[in-house]
Amino acid sequence: MKILITNDDGIQSPALPVLRDVLREFGTVEVVAPEREASASSHAITVHQPLRFFQSTLTDGTKGWAVTGTPADCVVLGMVKLGRPDVVVSGINPGANLGDDVTYSGTVGGAFEAALYGINAIALSVTDASTPEYGEAALVAARIFRSMGDLEHPFFLNVNVPPRSNGEIRITKMGRRLWSSNVHERIDPRNKPYYWISGIPREVGDEESDVVAVKRGYISITPIKLDLTDYSRMERLRALFSQPKDL
Amino acid sequence: MKILITNDDGIQSPALPVLRDVLREFGTVEVVAPEREASASSHAITVHQPLRFFQSTLTDGTKGWAVTGTPADCVVLGMVKLGRPDVVVSGINPGANLGDDVTYSGTVGGAFEAALYGINAIALSVTDASTPEYGEAALVAARIFRSMGDLEHPFFLNVNVPPRSNGEIRITKMGRRLWSSNVHERIDPRNKPYYWISGIPREVGDEESDVVAVKRGYISITPIKLDLTDYSRMERLRALFSQPKDL
Repeated sequence: MKILITNDDGIQSPALPVLRDVLREFGTVEVVAPEREASASSHAITVHQPLRFFQSTLTDGTKGWAVTGTPADCVVLGMVKLGRPDVVVSGINPGANLGDDVTYSGTVGGAFEAALYGINAIALSVTDASTPEYGEAALVAARIFRSMGDLEHPFFLNVNVPPRSNGEIRITKMGRRLWSSNVHERIDPRNKPYYWISGIPREVGDEESDVVAVKRGYISITPIKLDLTDYSRMERLRALFSQPKDL
Repeated sequence: MKILITNDDGIQSPALPVLRDVLREFGTVEVVAPEREASASSHAITVHQPLRFFQSTLTDGTKGWAVTGTPADCVVLGMVKLGRPDVVVSGINPGANLGDDVTYSGTVGGAFEAALYGINAIALSVTDASTPEYGEAALVAARIFRSMGDLEHPFFLNVNVPPRSNGEIRITKMGRRLWSSNVHERIDPRNKPYYWISGIPREVGDEESDVVAVKRGYISITPIKLDLTDYSRMERLRALFSQPKDL
């Protein structure tokens, strides 16, 4: 099996060697990660400037590949330069990617890019960014790889591992993680205003949701789909806009 | 009604005054757009650097607001600086945002950000980038605004207008727009390789899809939802991972 690891924290993330060491059991593993941190880069892809792809050193002294772009760029260049992988694992992200985070997340964006090409994709995060337990998250990835033959391909899984998890997996749906648009206005040394976007998410979800699962100590796995159509709205919209030139 | 217009082409896009002039009929309209082009920025939000928000001039000489960030950044700062809008319109993008484009698109990303806050959102594109008919697309937006009272709120609509459309609207689902990962390898003046990502999309979809609708000359409106959970996969995954510590 050909496995490609990417992330949005960059090639210097200490999670990369941990994940690679565990996944080596399942096949050949290549690491292609952004040269620099690319968090909140979402599914962005770089089309307005050229990219570099070069060998770089991971934190354990071994070699991987760095790209001067986003996680999605890493997947595209990784496919072209190293061949099409069977599975892309994006992570391990130090910090949750739950609910609405999925649409912002560079970690999920890397997995999304693979999924669009029909490649199996796993986005992997530990919810505790302060003392991230990468080893445990890597073992969760190994559990998924062991079930590879029983999974419906291609799959796209968003995985979140809480600290001191109870070891049990809950298959979840996306909850909501509402970011209040917290914008800090500051004044620069030349007396002009500038703004930092930040925020503390307010989590909303029922027992089936990812946000609640990790709160209860479960490992959360959410199957993601590429079709964002809201089918429940189509009939009413059709009734509204069925008249030609209803100006 | 308070309307906020953003885009991913930047404050200098000639589409902005066209759209604003048409939407003025429905309320107060503010334009908050990236200072520079931000295409393929997806739903990226800028958290690692500060942003500027300043008055700028549109191509018709009138004033709007520029942000040194992405369309999602524009929506966040627009909300904070100008108050929460009732509707965000992102566009008019010169070029289709169909099928898989939705997940890459900065245009859709701006609308997505609004939708996450529960604000009505419209992403608006003309499929022909070479001779974009912004006037016609703006009139399609006006048709949606005229139906405002009959729409279920909050709504999130992805609208694509083909050239010389037949004036009829089709309510569609997302098709596929498969980008082959076309990567151009080139050599710089110092003899080092660099890469450009590009690609020609291969469109796949049935008669209900957005990609086919615009090919047939219809205006395509796809209702988008925020929940990306693939519910059809949950049962099988539960059966697979139901054992605690199935190592």
